[in-house]
Amino acid sequence: MTTNGLLERVFTALDNFRIEIPSWGFANTGTRFGKFVQAAAATNLEEKFADGAEVNRLTGAAPTMALHVLWDLPNGLEDAERVLALAKTTGVQAGSINPNLFQSQEYKYGSLCNPSAEIRAKARKHLLNSVEIGKRLKSKDVSLWMADGSNYPGTQSIRKRVDWLAEGLAEAHAALGEEQRLLVEYKPFEPAFYHTDIADWGMALLLAKGAGPKAKVLVDTGHHYPSQNIEQIVAWLLHEDMLGGFHFNDRRYADDDLTLGSIDPYQVYRIFGELLSAEADGLPMDVAYMVDQSHNLKGKVEAMVQTVVTAQELYVKAALVDREQLAGLQEKCDLVAAEELFRGAFWTDVRPLVKAWREERGLPLEPLAELRRSGYVERAEAIRGPKQGGGGGYA
Amino acid sequence: MTTNGLLERVFTALDNFRIEIPSWGFANTGTRFGKFVQAAAATNLEEKFADGAEVNRLTGAAPTMALHVLWDLPNGLEDAERVLALAKTTGVQAGSINPNLFQSQEYKYGSLCNPSAEIRAKARKHLLNSVEIGKRLKSKDVSLWMADGSNYPGTQSIRKRVDWLAEGLAEAHAALGEEQRLLVEYKPFEPAFYHTDIADWGMALLLAKGAGPKAKVLVDTGHHYPSQNIEQIVAWLLHEDMLGGFHFNDRRYADDDLTLGSIDPYQVYRIFGELLSAEADGLPMDVAYMVDQSHNLKGKVEAMVQTVVTAQELYVKAALVDREQLAGLQEKCDLVAAEELFRGAFWTDVRPLVKAWREERGLPLEPLAELRRSGYVERAEAIRGPKQGGGGGYA
Amino acid sequence: MTTNGLLERVFTALDNFRIEIPSWGFANTGTRFGKFVQAAAATNLEEKFADGAEVNRLTGAAPTMALHVLWDLPNGLEDAERVLALAKTTGVQAGSINPNLFQSQEYKYGSLCNPSAEIRAKARKHLLNSVEIGKRLKSKDVSLWMADGSNYPGTQSIRKRVDWLAEGLAEAHAALGEEQRLLVEYKPFEPAFYHTDIADWGMALLLAKGAGPKAKVLVDTGHHYPSQNIEQIVAWLLHEDMLGGFHFNDRRYADDDLTLGSIDPYQVYRIFGELLSAEADGLPMDVAYMVDQSHNLKGKVEAMVQTVVTAQELYVKAALVDREQLAGLQEKCDLVAAEELFRGAFWTDVRPLVKAWREERGLPLEPLAELRRSGYVERAEAIRGPKQGGGGGYA
Amino acid sequence: MTTNGLLERVFTALDNFRIEIPSWGFANTGTRFGKFVQAAAATNLEEKFADGAEVNRLTGAAPTMALHVLWDLPNGLEDAERVLALAKTTGVQAGSINPNLFQSQEYKYGSLCNPSAEIRAKARKHLLNSVEIGKRLKSKDVSLWMADGSNYPGTQSIRKRVDWLAEGLAEAHAALGEEQRLLVEYKPFEPAFYHTDIADWGMALLLAKGAGPKAKVLVDTGHHYPSQNIEQIVAWLLHEDMLGGFHFNDRRYADDDLTLGSIDPYQVYRIFGELLSAEADGLPMDVAYMVDQSHNLKGKVEAMVQTVVTAQELYVKAALVDREQLAGLQEKCDLVAAEELFRGAFWTDVRPLVKAWREERGLPLEPLAELRRSGYVERAEAIRGPKQGGGGGYA
Repeated sequence: MTTNGLLERVFTALDNFRIEIPSWGFANTGTRFGKFVQAAAATNLEEKFADGAEVNRLTGAAPTMALHVLWDLPNGLEDAERVLALAKTTGVQAGSINPNLFQSQEYKYGSLCNPSAEIRAKARKHLLNSVEIGKRLKSKDVSLWMADGSNYPGTQSIRKRVDWLAEGLAEAHAALGEEQRLLVEYKPFEPAFYHTDIADWGMALLLAKGAGPKAKVLVDTGHHYPSQNIEQIVAWLLHEDMLGGFHFNDRRYADDDLTLGSIDPYQVYRIFGELLSAEADGLPMDVAYMVDQSHNLKGKVEAMVQTVVTAQELYVKAALVDREQLAGLQEKCDLVAAEELFRGAFWTDVRPLVKAWREERGLPLEPLAELRRSGYVERAEAIRGPKQGGGGGYA
Repeated sequence: MTTNGLLERVFTALDNFRIEIPSWGFANTGTRFGKFVQAAAATNLEEKFADGAEVNRLTGAAPTMALHVLWDLPNGLEDAERVLALAKTTGVQAGSINPNLFQSQEYKYGSLCNPSAEIRAKARKHLLNSVEIGKRLKSKDVSLWMADGSNYPGTQSIRKRVDWLAEGLAEAHAALGEEQRLLVEYKPFEPAFYHTDIADWGMALLLAKGAGPKAKVLVDTGHHYPSQNIEQIVAWLLHEDMLGGFHFNDRRYADDDLTLGSIDPYQVYRIFGELLSAEADGLPMDVAYMVDQSHNLKGKVEAMVQTVVTAQELYVKAALVDREQLAGLQEKCDLVAAEELFRGAFWTDVRPLVKAWREERGLPLEPLAELRRSGYVERAEAIRGPKQGGGGGYA
Repeated sequence: MTTNGLLERVFTALDNFRIEIPSWGFANTGTRFGKFVQAAAATNLEEKFADGAEVNRLTGAAPTMALHVLWDLPNGLEDAERVLALAKTTGVQAGSINPNLFQSQEYKYGSLCNPSAEIRAKARKHLLNSVEIGKRLKSKDVSLWMADGSNYPGTQSIRKRVDWLAEGLAEAHAALGEEQRLLVEYKPFEPAFYHTDIADWGMALLLAKGAGPKAKVLVDTGHHYPSQNIEQIVAWLLHEDMLGGFHFNDRRYADDDLTLGSIDPYQVYRIFGELLSAEADGLPMDVAYMVDQSHNLKGKVEAMVQTVVTAQELYVKAALVDREQLAGLQEKCDLVAAEELFRGAFWTDVRPLVKAWREERGLPLEPLAELRRSGYVERAEAIRGPKQGGGGGYA
Repeated sequence: MTTNGLLERVFTALDNFRIEIPSWGFANTGTRFGKFVQAAAATNLEEKFADGAEVNRLTGAAPTMALHVLWDLPNGLEDAERVLALAKTTGVQAGSINPNLFQSQEYKYGSLCNPSAEIRAKARKHLLNSVEIGKRLKSKDVSLWMADGSNYPGTQSIRKRVDWLAEGLAEAHAALGEEQRLLVEYKPFEPAFYHTDIADWGMALLLAKGAGPKAKVLVDTGHHYPSQNIEQIVAWLLHEDMLGGFHFNDRRYADDDLTLGSIDPYQVYRIFGELLSAEADGLPMDVAYMVDQSHNLKGKVEAMVQTVVTAQELYVKAALVDREQLAGLQEKCDLVAAEELFRGAFWTDVRPLVKAWREERGLPLEPLAELRRSGYVERAEAIRGPKQGGGGGYA
């Protein structure tokens, strides 16, 4: 490739690449053993939008922020105006709407899958409210993760719960606006330990298909078994036109919610590779890239900037693969040559290329350095520090 | 439950329980590091049928034997008469027909998914031959496991292979007779290491649905990730009316092909529980129970008898659960009571009950002891020993 | 075995079997997504001792309760008198002493392994205080679990932290009283996600050996990789005379802290089998059986009674194995006979035998039924309910 | 770093980096389902040495070849002269000596751990022979991997086998020459499925320590649980001065024996990072880098060249880390900065640097291209093709 051709390809990729960051990524989070409270963590929606705007200012790739209904719009629709106002002032738009069907005490034995018709009704209502909030905010995706499941064999009917779940999703789908989608997330473990009602992509796909054409599957990279081939699942969902979006994060063992690319960057690269391959083949695609991480130790804004930058770099690497040449080598089963071509792009140091793009687009050349230089975090610490609560505990 | 009621339930369960044993379970098998050759291992089809008949004589629950086209009918349809004759003399009927799409050198880069149209055609032809053999033998199921996949990222197009696979299955489905079915097996690893073309139940289900209404999913219990909840997959497949059958075996780490119930008997019990629950709820069900094991160290016939007896016992345990009472406790979320009821049946020592059934049905009271007493294995050793080949090796 | 011989063996096993329950098993616990608050959960040390006494009254096998320094003796040594008084009134003795080196905000980057000498000193002091508390309470074991580790590659020096840890343990060991022991627990994941400073039994063993002869390894059954053979680790620790005790619980995926025997009862049986085998061989053994569970959904006291009863039953099953006969079959490599003998004891329904023992020892015949009948939980709900706090939340 | 400083560091690293290749990596290998026979695969020791020499010619980093006693020196000591002659003519020296304690039919129930004293004696004798071969060949390491274990709970005494194993290793250690070492390899699964006698690094370390000071642990990267932190084990073994060497390979699920860095290159980088960190800290180190792979699909020589080159590149990346600066950031717990520094070196494209080194050292600039250009493989195919055997099969 000529240098110009290379730069053009990189610039196009970066111009098109957007990744949504979650409001809860700026708040104090932790493990069941407690939270390590950060002085600079956001304590309210205004601060979350401010943080989101800072990330977007530094990276140029994070113009929307996922919202969590319970934490960000505790009064439901009433809070929508506040969100719209914040969007206007910060330039960060409301992204996907995330219902909360796990925190209320009533959901102890499930939400949409609870054996109690009353509690199921409550859960459905919350889901419908989330759809309405999405409409008001002109947000495209309602992104549903449920914690439903059971902890012990024999204690719940797996099949009955499938039916209850299907009913709830169908009802929510029926309420969707023209431009809205329902993204169904799966997870094979935690916080339910014996069975989770939507355990894998197969279940999510069947439920989404059953709900209706505007329901798609959401892939959270941390919601798989240790050695599962995630990019193959992505390829299948693309093949079926059922991929709605991603929750990116990384992990070693379980749903560790570490920053993207921190443990296995080659896997993220391969996932982007499947997406770019499908795009090159002209498949119908409408995929939302989102981050879902828990910055327990790293600084919140710092971790998010690092995440977006890493995502950009890995995406650019994947965009460098000559897909036509690769297809030829695959066809011939020239394994080593195909692999070298594919992995060669991963080995390319794209940091100077991304820097060139930043310069061209008037962005800070070194986002993390610029964040440190700006004093943003120190100012947040001073203002927010006194407002922080305690870290909680295990028992 | 009254003693009579209990016995009736047990007898009904056992009268209905049939499990198919595989012809290759009587042959010498091993690992990539070599085979430990057994003198009594079957060296030809006649001996396999004899072994199968012995297992059926001892257990009364194994009237059919799965056949492997390449190993048992190397001449294809021509060999069908031989099989029918053996079935007549031994009383063991031909069970599922298993194509072989992995042993030929041409399948190095795949069979139905091979980038070469020529090799795909060869694989399809073999699959069609298998369907024809099934017809001739009046065998119901063509049971398809493929080893297709790739070993290195980037070396094959995952999505193109999906299409090729779908075409092959549709063609095979079109050739099925009225009473035939096509069972699609999945496996997430081995012998392909980076990706296997049918990696999980979701992929198998989509492929089976795409192939046609007579295609169903086959669950091999060893083809899952370590902590996967297999009974939930069973429940989902039953819910979708897409469960065609099982390959039972047990394992600790990978596809170890150990004897059923040897590592985690409670899991097998839970799987039977889902099946009996669906039956109690009147779901449409047509599920073939089959064994797929590799008796590398245990005596072949001995291991098979042990397997069938263990399956009977675990099935009877599951049949003892009062499903109505359990449903009530599940409804109330009375977790501990529900679990105790469910697990209580597992704790019940059913061996005397199964023995009573054997007595009633004129079967040997202690199948393993009777096998030892009979001298069957010693006779086989004397006759077959001299015919055994070598154990092979790793490199 | 004669019926009398059988009963004698069962009674001896049960008379010897004691399992320690943790005070925190009676408090409200949950996951990082929140806690489901139980009205009857213990809200203070008095209530924990009351609950412990109730479990012991019902099972006759739980005479001691593990204490957590931070939660149960927040004032350190000063609280010891209160504990001793409670032990006197309830008949439940103070069991192992559990330091807390994870909840304080200062431990964000580690406790005994923190790069800051000051924070390490604080952690050591807490550990020494725990040793003093143990002395005062005449408690034998200081049971150390640390959450130390790191979340991202490159962010900490794994080897430096080993040295700091070794120093801290040596100091604690030096302070142990004549009868005291230091139990070193290992865990490969959570809450640190990239590396945990004591990740496996090998590390725990080296650290314990380095600390001194009164340091032993603590095995938490939930702290292993999915398919790990835990009983083999137990066998090795017994072989090295380095096994100090257990934290029992069950799990499907990670450290789920479910009730013992709820997911894989055969594994617990095999663990007990290794212990009884070592005992039969006359190995030096001093092993503390303890429970460490998180009853997020099940009733606290109910779950604990169920746990102790299940432990008794599985222990009795393991005690039924004729070890001499088994050794003979193992020697001959008569695999199926050995396995049938070994697993046969597991299949034995020991519930009537345990009931006979209860009758003989004047214990309630059906502990769980007796708990329900007693109204203990309802009374606790009435008194404690109004005192319960909130359930917390993820973000 | 200045460009000169950078190049110097790279050149020093590459000059010091040697990796041993295994003779069996050039032979036909496969899975239990059969072997895909390659025309160019080596069929005898001469061809293996020729292949090894070609790899060394192309990479300049593989001057020794691991030998397998059974396959390469079937006549034991008698074959040593042949090996020495080949070493002279090819310039490739005999590397580690690998006993074979798994292929003989007698090892069905174990070798050094077999309940039969006679079979144990045979296994010990083979091990002693291997030591003698090592002496004669002036090979430093006897590299012991055993397949011993059991397939079913209760069928073998885990502890008795520990004692037998310890005796065998002590005997072998006593026979070691002044310069020889005994490397003890561990593996948690396959081909034994329920328990393997040396399952993890803890067991290997205890056995090595018990055998004597010249026994060390061998880490095969594929012999771990899916999410295990291998570099932490490396760090611990270095800390204890117990790391003897590596068998490098990569995998997704089990012991897949794929080429190094093909699935998770960042992990290999982190392992090299721990080694270079220990070296920088001046720890005593004597670590043999070896490859153990099964090239089932890739061309044998091609795969080996690719492996060595990838190892060089990942090693150079790890050598670029400024360890002093990193230590400072770790000390301050500046997580993101530390991670960026650490991972930054991984992102550096070192291929031009390695090329510069090749030029300086008179090596082919592009080893894989040079291999293709040379026609070596085609010549081997022509000569060896007619000599190839069949691929075997599962049953």
